[in-house]
Amino acid sequence: MSSSYGQHVKLSIFGQSHGEAIGVTLDGFPAGMSIDMAHLQAEMARRAPGQSLLTTARKEADAPEFVSGVLDGRTTGQPICILIRNTNQRSRDYGDGVDLVRPGHADYTGHVRYFGFEDWRGGGSFSGRLTAPLVAAGALCSQWLAAQGVTIACHIQQLGGMADASFMQADSGTDYSYLKQMHLPVLTQGLDAQMEAAAMAARNDCDSIGGVLECMVTGLPAGLGAPFFDSVESQLSHLLFSVPAVKGVEFGEGFGFAALRGSKANDAFRMAKGRVVTETNHSGGVNGGITNGMPVIFRCVIRPTPSIAQRQRTVSLKAGENADIEIHGRHDPCILPRAVPVIEAMTAIAILDMWKERQGCLM
Amino acid sequence: MSSSYGQHVKLSIFGQSHGEAIGVTLDGFPAGMSIDMAHLQAEMARRAPGQSLLTTARKEADAPEFVSGVLDGRTTGQPICILIRNTNQRSRDYGDGVDLVRPGHADYTGHVRYFGFEDWRGGGSFSGRLTAPLVAAGALCSQWLAAQGVTIACHIQQLGGMADASFMQADSGTDYSYLKQMHLPVLTQGLDAQMEAAAMAARNDCDSIGGVLECMVTGLPAGLGAPFFDSVESQLSHLLFSVPAVKGVEFGEGFGFAALRGSKANDAFRMAKGRVVTETNHSGGVNGGITNGMPVIFRCVIRPTPSIAQRQRTVSLKAGENADIEIHGRHDPCILPRAVPVIEAMTAIAILDMWKERQGCLM
Amino acid sequence: MSSSYGQHVKLSIFGQSHGEAIGVTLDGFPAGMSIDMAHLQAEMARRAPGQSLLTTARKEADAPEFVSGVLDGRTTGQPICILIRNTNQRSRDYGDGVDLVRPGHADYTGHVRYFGFEDWRGGGSFSGRLTAPLVAAGALCSQWLAAQGVTIACHIQQLGGMADASFMQADSGTDYSYLKQMHLPVLTQGLDAQMEAAAMAARNDCDSIGGVLECMVTGLPAGLGAPFFDSVESQLSHLLFSVPAVKGVEFGEGFGFAALRGSKANDAFRMAKGRVVTETNHSGGVNGGITNGMPVIFRCVIRPTPSIAQRQRTVSLKAGENADIEIHGRHDPCILPRAVPVIEAMTAIAILDMWKERQGCLM
Amino acid sequence: MSSSYGQHVKLSIFGQSHGEAIGVTLDGFPAGMSIDMAHLQAEMARRAPGQSLLTTARKEADAPEFVSGVLDGRTTGQPICILIRNTNQRSRDYGDGVDLVRPGHADYTGHVRYFGFEDWRGGGSFSGRLTAPLVAAGALCSQWLAAQGVTIACHIQQLGGMADASFMQADSGTDYSYLKQMHLPVLTQGLDAQMEAAAMAARNDCDSIGGVLECMVTGLPAGLGAPFFDSVESQLSHLLFSVPAVKGVEFGEGFGFAALRGSKANDAFRMAKGRVVTETNHSGGVNGGITNGMPVIFRCVIRPTPSIAQRQRTVSLKAGENADIEIHGRHDPCILPRAVPVIEAMTAIAILDMWKERQGCLM
Repeated sequence: MSSSYGQHVKLSIFGQSHGEAIGVTLDGFPAGMSIDMAHLQAEMARRAPGQSLLTTARKEADAPEFVSGVLDGRTTGQPICILIRNTNQRSRDYGDGVDLVRPGHADYTGHVRYFGFEDWRGGGSFSGRLTAPLVAAGALCSQWLAAQGVTIACHIQQLGGMADASFMQADSGTDYSYLKQMHLPVLTQGLDAQMEAAAMAARNDCDSIGGVLECMVTGLPAGLGAPFFDSVESQLSHLLFSVPAVKGVEFGEGFGFAALRGSKANDAFRMAKGRVVTETNHSGGVNGGITNGMPVIFRCVIRPTPSIAQRQRTVSLKAGENADIEIHGRHDPCILPRAVPVIEAMTAIAILDMWKERQGCLM
Repeated sequence: MSSSYGQHVKLSIFGQSHGEAIGVTLDGFPAGMSIDMAHLQAEMARRAPGQSLLTTARKEADAPEFVSGVLDGRTTGQPICILIRNTNQRSRDYGDGVDLVRPGHADYTGHVRYFGFEDWRGGGSFSGRLTAPLVAAGALCSQWLAAQGVTIACHIQQLGGMADASFMQADSGTDYSYLKQMHLPVLTQGLDAQMEAAAMAARNDCDSIGGVLECMVTGLPAGLGAPFFDSVESQLSHLLFSVPAVKGVEFGEGFGFAALRGSKANDAFRMAKGRVVTETNHSGGVNGGITNGMPVIFRCVIRPTPSIAQRQRTVSLKAGENADIEIHGRHDPCILPRAVPVIEAMTAIAILDMWKERQGCLM
Repeated sequence: MSSSYGQHVKLSIFGQSHGEAIGVTLDGFPAGMSIDMAHLQAEMARRAPGQSLLTTARKEADAPEFVSGVLDGRTTGQPICILIRNTNQRSRDYGDGVDLVRPGHADYTGHVRYFGFEDWRGGGSFSGRLTAPLVAAGALCSQWLAAQGVTIACHIQQLGGMADASFMQADSGTDYSYLKQMHLPVLTQGLDAQMEAAAMAARNDCDSIGGVLECMVTGLPAGLGAPFFDSVESQLSHLLFSVPAVKGVEFGEGFGFAALRGSKANDAFRMAKGRVVTETNHSGGVNGGITNGMPVIFRCVIRPTPSIAQRQRTVSLKAGENADIEIHGRHDPCILPRAVPVIEAMTAIAILDMWKERQGCLM
Repeated sequence: MSSSYGQHVKLSIFGQSHGEAIGVTLDGFPAGMSIDMAHLQAEMARRAPGQSLLTTARKEADAPEFVSGVLDGRTTGQPICILIRNTNQRSRDYGDGVDLVRPGHADYTGHVRYFGFEDWRGGGSFSGRLTAPLVAAGALCSQWLAAQGVTIACHIQQLGGMADASFMQADSGTDYSYLKQMHLPVLTQGLDAQMEAAAMAARNDCDSIGGVLECMVTGLPAGLGAPFFDSVESQLSHLLFSVPAVKGVEFGEGFGFAALRGSKANDAFRMAKGRVVTETNHSGGVNGGITNGMPVIFRCVIRPTPSIAQRQRTVSLKAGENADIEIHGRHDPCILPRAVPVIEAMTAIAILDMWKERQGCLM
């Protein structure tokens, strides 16, 4: 099923980019949490378009409406449905039916899968717009996890050929909450300005650029996840690859393991203050699919936004022949800043699911 | 649940490395297929240990026993249970209880997750040995897919600092079946010998090396998969990350997208012989989570085998203090050749699941 | 998870009786069906309150709003979310917090399960009101099935000590569509009037009555369902027991089998017009969990509405002591007429799920 | 999928009546339980054939072999696979291919579902024989639940027109463990002899008889289950209807609710020793799908065994014409005594699943 995920906290999304509303139902969320609306709104704002010249000018109120599961501002333990009205559909931007399929988009594949009946307007169910309710759901999960001492930090590790420092070398004790305040969150001072310049250059060329996001989760107990099909990597990657534009996911050293020998790749165990820790964290906090108590670190690559203003070669589905296309309307020359809260949200959702697998409904 | 996977073809694995047997139950497999035992045995043999000095000397008969779901050599449509006896347990190699946890292994995390009750012998449920039944299950799936014109090819794209050519530049019309005959399957003639030398060098240093496998699936129709949670990338990565040692997965250009602009990353659509194709295949055959009819191409990184003969730093769980460990017994200095059929098997299983989602039980 | 169901057509419900809205997301529904709004509205109307003195006077517009999954009146194959606003909340009917738990209701059990954080107003997530979106979802499924020649008929087989005829003796060729037009659908002419009198008598005694509904599905192919956990009986009963007030489900002769011998209980097979049929249908159209092509017939018992105007003994959760309660507000002295479309809806949903398991997405 | 069940404790069964072996994989079972083999063997023995003239003479060793998930007699928390060899296949009893389909059996429906490729021998996957591994799995679950103070009792409430007393009137404090010692467990002294006479009479007529089993679960906490799709009734009935021969399930008063008014059907709440209890238990321990702390009581009807020695009318699938059939070989004139431990096993499995949903993996 394309729109459901989760075993212990179950997610179900619905809506199209240019339909009346989009939303999510979150089932199995713990009861009794007083929702921090400021936190939720802040997360929504980070994903919202129109923040800068780097992102689409499309304006959306993105006001999450709690349709169920909340009473007097507290979660009830019953299914939480969050609805977000589409206040700014401009279907006419998209012509009167799918014909010229946009390269890099799902216009063609959606047309095949849904036998021509899909809601093709603005990407329909495929639109990144669907990530808005996911961010709202993730904000609830990250608030709950924060109360357990779990923090999630994410930064832009690569953009336009520039590389930021990595959490792999970071002191996990550092407070990275400042990253949430940055439009282009980076660890290296001043690098955000250079990255912004690279993104603006692409924009001026009617082009777009991709990059890499790196995420670190601290405060996790050892013992979450499982070997094989419920491995931490399997569960996280399943959700991360659900995010449009994510085309690669790696944990710890990731693809860097290809150049390492076992003697360098293994993380030696040590006792520290009566706890078992590892001297290094090449494995990114996961051994055999299970958290080992060290920070969980992973990176995912975000492909450049396929919507670019340049003329591109494509086909006409109606005519069944080659054609050219020029995509007008609103684009994100660089989607990464908006992708950061989405990746954090998916991470929070996946981890809460594993947490509940371990701990059930008990509080 | 750690041991089950799949929505339309459901997999359930069981067994520990040094228990009496390991196995898999495959439910929802199409009825009426006459099992090609030669194909199945060949796949098992590629994964089997003891093929060369690169792999552990542990000998296993690995004779798959069809306990159910097969009548007169044909699948019945009922659950197929495949059992593999452990003929060569040598538990004494592992001492009389988990104490010194092996770096890079799941000894410690399994101990925490299972509250000290886990079968710790030889990695227990975490052992790569569990991939044997998965290869058997995958062989059934790949046989069925082959009859539909779907082929799966895999080669070692990186090893010991050497890089092979990539399927990204390949002619999808080429017959890559020769790769299945190679101990170190590569596209570049002679490279396998150099890679073997690198692996042997690591072995002589009592060390191990990792690398990258690249996989290509051809003959897929457009329309498999779904947006978001059932995306081709989500479903494939979920299974691929279930394989011990896989720490990264990327599709198409993967992490290379970080350095591309949209104008280069987009695959232009063209008409060819009445079919919609793309001029390039940067996206690896998937748009918006759905196959577009081009070859599905992905890479996964295999970390170096954590079992090395060198002395390593660790902790004693019993004493709660630092200790050193030397791992005796059987190791794979380079697991990649044995990982190839496992990755192919996981791919076949994931694709058959998507195929059945589309087509149901009808034949 | 309490609010999700289905493997091939997945249902997810949300909302509380006195929240802002209730709804359902239906994922995996076939693409391309032009929704028959008249059919859908008619089904909603049959479930709606306020139809007669037998049912609660609570008025609800029950106007289903298609939030997603529909374009130009046609299903897109993407998740269909149907929202129903609560236009007539009267929370004050329910005091300012759960204290006196209503006998026969879920006030107490919900309080325990959700640790006191549940939305207790008017039964919260437990309210029969949640069946409104299920009827809407079921109407889509029954429309699709009707196009395949599948019909679902339901009547009140027992009420107030009176028994109607049974589909077990019926000619499956008969057109039972007239039942949908009756407020108290029965097979025996005039019996509805007597049943109404019995219900009114209970009403006048500030009491309520239960009864039995019988349902018949005709036009099903042989081969739906599966042995064991996906048996037709398992899947149907799972959904039927989800309906508040259903406390028993039986197929074919059901509990009558206890008094039969095998020689009477077995249905002899015969050839008829080249098709395999059974002479009798004691098994209710299901052998070994799989449809045999004969009508699927089952009955479910509906307990009397627990909301009655009489004074009842209960406890005060706040005081932790015995107390009396008088429930004011709106009651259904006889819920059966409103339960009929709900049972039909659940049946349609379960059967479409089995149908898709067999046939996939292909049309 | 026909062979899997469960969300928190996952069951997967495999095997055919006349294949090499049958078995079950139980995943998610709590770690650290020392298996009481005497209890397990006793449960297996109650289900085993050949206990008396009432049951088939087919002898099976039914020796459960723990293939995985157990170390030193203790559960490891990893998947438990239990294998049972078929030591007594007598396929020749069944001719050389399915042709004359047995009335009341799944020969015909299985033939349709599996396109003629099914393992038809002795009922294949449909055979009651498959309940043997379920009893083994259930014995593990009931042992674990017993340690939490949960007991499961079951008796024959109806047989051959005779009715036993009901748990509905029982004192839940009574110790009903004596029932496990009886070949025909009943509450009314001497009734078992009369029932046995009725069963023998049927046997002498080459016939079979059905009946009703009643089950009571005591010691459950309030708060298990959920409204709607995960209701206690939905989850239990899903598993109970998976048992071949079960054609009806009712909770508490069940179908008796049809003749009750609300004032009689509601269970008044009272405080007793600081706990909330109900004065009566018409609802069978479940309100709104959630346990209320009172005993969970349900009944299920067992249809008469379809295998009878009398000549019956059927069809020849090969000839496509009417025919007669005489079923030779081994029959159970009265399956109820063997069904008792199966129903208890399914109950234990369903309840452990709900328990883990609530409590997770923590011990």
